[in-house]
Amino acid sequence: MLFHVRMDVKLPRDLSAEEAVEILAREKAYSQDLQKSGKWRHIWRIAGQYANVSIFDVTDNAELHEILSGLPLFKFMDIEVMPLVRHPSAVRGDDS
Amino acid sequence: MLFHVRMDVKLPRDLSAEEAVEILAREKAYSQDLQKSGKWRHIWRIAGQYANVSIFDVTDNAELHEILSGLPLFKFMDIEVMPLVRHPSAVRGDDS
Amino acid sequence: MLFHVRMDVKLPRDLSAEEAVEILAREKAYSQDLQKSGKWRHIWRIAGQYANVSIFDVTDNAELHEILSGLPLFKFMDIEVMPLVRHPSAVRGDDS
Amino acid sequence: MLFHVRMDVKLPRDLSAEEAVEILAREKAYSQDLQKSGKWRHIWRIAGQYANVSIFDVTDNAELHEILSGLPLFKFMDIEVMPLVRHPSAVRGDDS
Amino acid sequence: MLFHVRMDVKLPRDLSAEEAVEILAREKAYSQDLQKSGKWRHIWRIAGQYANVSIFDVTDNAELHEILSGLPLFKFMDIEVMPLVRHPSAVRGDDS
Amino acid sequence: MLFHVRMDVKLPRDLSAEEAVEILAREKAYSQDLQKSGKWRHIWRIAGQYANVSIFDVTDNAELHEILSGLPLFKFMDIEVMPLVRHPSAVRGDDS
Amino acid sequence: MLFHVRMDVKLPRDLSAEEAVEILAREKAYSQDLQKSGKWRHIWRIAGQYANVSIFDVTDNAELHEILSGLPLFKFMDIEVMPLVRHPSAVRGDDS
Amino acid sequence: MLFHVRMDVKLPRDLSAEEAVEILAREKAYSQDLQKSGKWRHIWRIAGQYANVSIFDVTDNAELHEILSGLPLFKFMDIEVMPLVRHPSAVRGDDS
Amino acid sequence: MLFHVRMDVKLPRDLSAEEAVEILAREKAYSQDLQKSGKWRHIWRIAGQYANVSIFDVTDNAELHEILSGLPLFKFMDIEVMPLVRHPSAVRGDDS
Amino acid sequence: MLFHVRMDVKLPRDLSAEEAVEILAREKAYSQDLQKSGKWRHIWRIAGQYANVSIFDVTDNAELHEILSGLPLFKFMDIEVMPLVRHPSAVRGDDS
Repeated sequence: MLFHVRMDVKLPRDLSAEEAVEILAREKAYSQDLQKSGKWRHIWRIAGQYANVSIFDVTDNAELHEILSGLPLFKFMDIEVMPLVRHPSAVRGDDS
Repeated sequence: MLFHVRMDVKLPRDLSAEEAVEILAREKAYSQDLQKSGKWRHIWRIAGQYANVSIFDVTDNAELHEILSGLPLFKFMDIEVMPLVRHPSAVRGDDS
Repeated sequence: MLFHVRMDVKLPRDLSAEEAVEILAREKAYSQDLQKSGKWRHIWRIAGQYANVSIFDVTDNAELHEILSGLPLFKFMDIEVMPLVRHPSAVRGDDS
Repeated sequence: MLFHVRMDVKLPRDLSAEEAVEILAREKAYSQDLQKSGKWRHIWRIAGQYANVSIFDVTDNAELHEILSGLPLFKFMDIEVMPLVRHPSAVRGDDS
Repeated sequence: MLFHVRMDVKLPRDLSAEEAVEILAREKAYSQDLQKSGKWRHIWRIAGQYANVSIFDVTDNAELHEILSGLPLFKFMDIEVMPLVRHPSAVRGDDS
Repeated sequence: MLFHVRMDVKLPRDLSAEEAVEILAREKAYSQDLQKSGKWRHIWRIAGQYANVSIFDVTDNAELHEILSGLPLFKFMDIEVMPLVRHPSAVRGDDS
Repeated sequence: MLFHVRMDVKLPRDLSAEEAVEILAREKAYSQDLQKSGKWRHIWRIAGQYANVSIFDVTDNAELHEILSGLPLFKFMDIEVMPLVRHPSAVRGDDS
Repeated sequence: MLFHVRMDVKLPRDLSAEEAVEILAREKAYSQDLQKSGKWRHIWRIAGQYANVSIFDVTDNAELHEILSGLPLFKFMDIEVMPLVRHPSAVRGDDS
Repeated sequence: MLFHVRMDVKLPRDLSAEEAVEILAREKAYSQDLQKSGKWRHIWRIAGQYANVSIFDVTDNAELHEILSGLPLFKFMDIEVMPLVRHPSAVRGDDS
Repeated sequence: MLFHVRMDVKLPRDLSAEEAVEILAREKAYSQDLQKSGKWRHIWRIAGQYANVSIFDVTDNAELHEILSGLPLFKFMDIEVMPLVRHPSAVRGDDS
């Protein structure tokens, strides 16, 4: 089941450089593990923004929330979620 | 080069059933041709909306505009475009 | 799996009284069938508005979209969807 | 009498971990007491958000305000209230 | 129990002068009956707008909705409702 | 001459408890003096919000601004003003 | 007493050329009479818009509303009103 | 050439009383010099707001920007600019 | 003197194909004459939109308004204007 | 390939004067190098704002993002990007 998620990151000004490096490394590892597992199906950077658009493929809403609320950067993000369904004109097998 | 496009469709109330059938058939064929060519890489329906989120893979801005402005439903749509780039955490080869 | 849905109805001014009676009767029957089946778990009117807030309990996004896009009033509604999950403080068994 | 309430939580960055643990424990106990009494009829987490949607069943506006302004997290929340009434298509006995 | 209601009127352009006169006369009578009964406690015109701000004193949400949805101009209005409670600094006896 | 005023209060996080107690006591006294004089005709709390809706009865714009800008909480408030006039359907003598 | 008023004009598409000429002539005469009397103190066109910004000098809110609601174009306008007061830094005698 | 400018002032909470007194005195002198020169043609306080509406009469855009960016409070303001032109119905000689 | 102008075109549904062809031809000629004269310095289509971003180089606000309000499509457009000035970092001679 | 970019700068209040001088000098040099190379084709200040409108001429989305995310002021800016294409009415050779 697919979800469209947009994440906008706002790092607080008082985050030290060390903390930032550490949290961003954890975020990257967390994201890549989920990408490899197939749960986090796509991720793109929005040009000119500290933001991404992602497609998640999860079992249900609960799994989606568990993944998102577990993001190391969760408390520094604005997140918007839209549930997706297969489009009646889609030809690509895995767009659902 | 990838673009994120959201299309919201608003069919006018005075569109006859025949016109609607005809234009929607043309829209579907137009979309599927572009999907098969790889230009229109993904398309998903947003649940509960007469709207889609799509990912286009085009040569440049001009090709994107030519495709979008050529949509049979173009004049009945609100369209939002965001240029995308590869995310530094992406693992999937074709997410760029 | 639960979804929060808000529906705002805008009947077009040129809808005849007969058409309105007929479509509203179909809408009511459609809604009540889904309520009885347990898919449309709650529905409330928002005071002072021609609008409702509903909770759906469906298998997946696809079933939600099928239900919403099948509403007799679908083309006369603005619909907003939010996926829900069990709240960690919830005590009621069926709030998930 | 039913009210629809959405609460968005924004914990300030300078809240210590101890304070956070303490206030969240009080919030949970406060919410669960009201849920058990039937005043706080439903609570759901919005997927991907530090936010909830709740349904309150109270005697009047004054009781609603007393409950909401007494929330331990009240000063860290944005709260939106909508009065609800029974929907004419509702079949469930307690949706009013 | 008090509610703050704002009503913005938008008469459709194809409403005939006769229909307008008739519906506005019914609206006025409807409003004045409720004002005399004490249910519609205050009504003010917003300067420069075809809009009013009103205070209703009703038994519950259901009575409020019955009154508002029964307005002859209901289908030509945008309506916003806010539940009110006595302010802790209020000195006037009937501001609750 | 009547004005509709909405005030939303946002106390800064670094306001000490002592300062808060003192400023809120001054605010209350200031408001009650004006209520007793008839200048501040009504005040209601919006349910679930740290906000009020008030009706002022003043000689002119200048007096309104003098009152509002003199509020002890003025610098911690968002204030919206709408000039009111007697509604043509009003029956209550003092709604103007 | 001064008010800042912004008026945005939207002529309906089905207004005949004759009706438009006639109503615009009446609007101009109405405005110029009030300008000559000193009630409509200033009027400027916003560059690139079918809109104006005006300053009215009236006795009270009621007179302002009588003037605005009497505009021949009133039903084709969006109007926003802000009450003004003398600025503490003003040097010009008639800016109050 | 005329411009309509709205300025909303937000003094930061950590500005000392001395700094505030000093900067506000400079702002007042700056504004009054420009008013006397005729460049800052009008200034009004918006009732209930820490904000003003002003009319500037300058040679060109560059002079307007030089004036606005030179305001002592510039970095504590939100500023909106609209170019104005003579209204075809204007009767007052200097409204252009 | 430079202005940034965004124009969004919304052709009404009841405009005949003949009228559309004629008005668009006039719009194009009007625009190209001004481009050749140097008044309309730049024009770009926004990808995926029936909209353009333009830079005008005019003597004053009045000339800008005369040009914009003379556009054959003026009544079918939403127009936004921003005055520009030379940027302190600009290196290009004609960016002012 | 052209992009329209708007940048709004918000320097944090705790940035020291030295840091500000240093970062602004780096920003200026960065911008001027790109202008000289032809990548940053135009830059204009918006009158009355700490903001600019720029036109970039880049190879693709990736180059645009690399340039924007490398701005010394990037973390203190709100940035909006719109892809541009040649307008069918354009006469100027380099507006594409």
